[in-house]
Amino acid sequence: MTLEELRKQIDEIDDGILELFLKRMACAKQVAEVKRQKGLPIFNETRELKILDDVCRKAGEYGGQARILYANLMAMSREAQHSALGSGTELRQAVLKASRFPNKPRSVACLGEKGSYSHEALSRLYPEAEPVFFPDFPSIFAAVENGRADLGVLPVENSSAGSVNEVYDLILKYRFSIVSAISLSVRHCLASRETELHEIQTVYSHPQALRQCAGYLKKRGVSSAECSSTAGAAKLAAGKRKTAALCSEHAAAQYGLNILDRNVQDSDGNRTRFIAIGQNLLIPPQANKISLCFAVPHRTGTLYTVLARFAASGLNLTKIESRPIPGRNFEYDFYLDFSGSVADPKTLDLLCALSEELTRFSFLGNYSELE
Amino acid sequence: MTLEELRKQIDEIDDGILELFLKRMACAKQVAEVKRQKGLPIFNETRELKILDDVCRKAGEYGGQARILYANLMAMSREAQHSALGSGTELRQAVLKASRFPNKPRSVACLGEKGSYSHEALSRLYPEAEPVFFPDFPSIFAAVENGRADLGVLPVENSSAGSVNEVYDLILKYRFSIVSAISLSVRHCLASRETELHEIQTVYSHPQALRQCAGYLKKRGVSSAECSSTAGAAKLAAGKRKTAALCSEHAAAQYGLNILDRNVQDSDGNRTRFIAIGQNLLIPPQANKISLCFAVPHRTGTLYTVLARFAASGLNLTKIESRPIPGRNFEYDFYLDFSGSVADPKTLDLLCALSEELTRFSFLGNYSELE
Repeated sequence: MTLEELRKQIDEIDDGILELFLKRMACAKQVAEVKRQKGLPIFNETRELKILDDVCRKAGEYGGQARILYANLMAMSREAQHSALGSGTELRQAVLKASRFPNKPRSVACLGEKGSYSHEALSRLYPEAEPVFFPDFPSIFAAVENGRADLGVLPVENSSAGSVNEVYDLILKYRFSIVSAISLSVRHCLASRETELHEIQTVYSHPQALRQCAGYLKKRGVSSAECSSTAGAAKLAAGKRKTAALCSEHAAAQYGLNILDRNVQDSDGNRTRFIAIGQNLLIPPQANKISLCFAVPHRTGTLYTVLARFAASGLNLTKIESRPIPGRNFEYDFYLDFSGSVADPKTLDLLCALSEELTRFSFLGNYSELE
Repeated sequence: MTLEELRKQIDEIDDGILELFLKRMACAKQVAEVKRQKGLPIFNETRELKILDDVCRKAGEYGGQARILYANLMAMSREAQHSALGSGTELRQAVLKASRFPNKPRSVACLGEKGSYSHEALSRLYPEAEPVFFPDFPSIFAAVENGRADLGVLPVENSSAGSVNEVYDLILKYRFSIVSAISLSVRHCLASRETELHEIQTVYSHPQALRQCAGYLKKRGVSSAECSSTAGAAKLAAGKRKTAALCSEHAAAQYGLNILDRNVQDSDGNRTRFIAIGQNLLIPPQANKISLCFAVPHRTGTLYTVLARFAASGLNLTKIESRPIPGRNFEYDFYLDFSGSVADPKTLDLLCALSEELTRFSFLGNYSELE
């Protein structure tokens, strides 16, 4: 057969599959109605596993592929049933009750010190709020819980101050929500109380920043000294002649330093992401990003059928991360960010369906992210 | 209709879909043969996108679902074609030429200092090798490249010494491979030159370890002081009376300290994963873990169709992480670990197919991981 003939044959097969697929979805809706009347659960694991085993056997050399295809078909069918039944009451209620108005926090808890990159993120997100500084993540959550601060700002990527896992653990522990986010370019400047570059003999900074600017420092032939933070380096340089700090322009301004050189990092493109967390769910009208956490059992293809459902709803992942669940072999928590809004009924339906089907499911927030 | 009648109807539909699916796969094989004869590429993006758009339109309210279903069918069809054609020659050759024998490295580069958790990982992986210590990731790669060390050991999770991204960037930059891995529980002990707990007044450690043991220290009523590492704390405590360090037992042994208390961290379950990297691809016979890196274009469902293919081959993901590609909006690199071995022809076929289809595809290694 020629390629054209083969393609024509494939097109006919595809038409047949589509027809059967749509019939199957129509049946799923009827199944939903029967299940509603009889109060039966949507997910029938025994039946699904039996169908998968049967199909895998019947498909011979394509058993693995057929299994995935049917896992997918059944997930879509469940989806249609959940949608027909309005599943996920708890999440639906929480989203309905969430505040729609961006709050104007009076005070915001922040990691590190005056002039830190976290402080810069806070100033961009909440320019009118008073920053309150804390040395670690748990103190920030405690401050928001006991009302010392209205919100907290924390780095969640490229951070040397703690791990992202710790942030997620704390969000789940405190049952807080993500209310906004910002992504900042990490750009170091050389800042000093001196006004001329050639006067600088020693450059202070955090070891990571020193590494990021190693090429620049070598070329300049200056010696370097480590500090515990870039903001700390700025503070130190403000008090000592013939020294400079590698820090953000924000930090230089905080300590009244002159900026002798800009963008001195060896390579561009490093960004750090910060989130703001609060006690209450807040979903501003322009919210365009959703964060979730859930576990999937260690069965081949389980993650994939969940992702298929995001894809089927036209939702794009912007982040995915897996993490082994401590104490349970081969079970994983997944952290996902995707673009979308719960104001879209289809998106809300999907999340509500998943909230019923997945263990350890948490809706972490629907917010907007500044660049 | 009753549930039983509906299910019978669904079963019949499923039989029909399976029949058509198997016909489609048979056509795909014939397409592969025609393409081989004519030297045509397997992936025909224009045709695939047109089919997806058509099917999406025809499926009405289930357009999104139908699109995913067909993206999946076409990916499986490509898979069958790649397999029939033996695609991915470059990767196939590299795997064939890889050494099968675990090497006995004489010296291994290691992050940090004597007694660090990295040092412990190295000692467990290569008990007979001489450790050589370096302060950062780039120095370790340089040492392996210039032959000062045969291999390098680096932490790739929960690490405060640098980011996982940095490790992956360096592996790709140097074109190194992952040759082994180990996962260590992070367990701190209280170690001192003193022999009695009540003599301790000050406890040294890295800020992260101090936080991890904050509850314990509070209960004991001792003051704490920060050091740059847990091993550094052990060294310090060895030289000063009435002090102790929070460090690993390995570090305590390195500095001849008495272990006054064990497992003093507030919660268990923290593990750090370490990998060993080398210049050459080494695939030991018992290798059971594969690491990959690749980019997918920002089109809905692209990641998902790749994961579907892993699932169809029965391969279980053990780790997935996304990372925005610097300078390119909405394009992502993915880092994946999954259980498997390239000695399995089906697994190798899948990787070879992906190596042809995905941009920025890198096979990082096939190794075994100690617990």
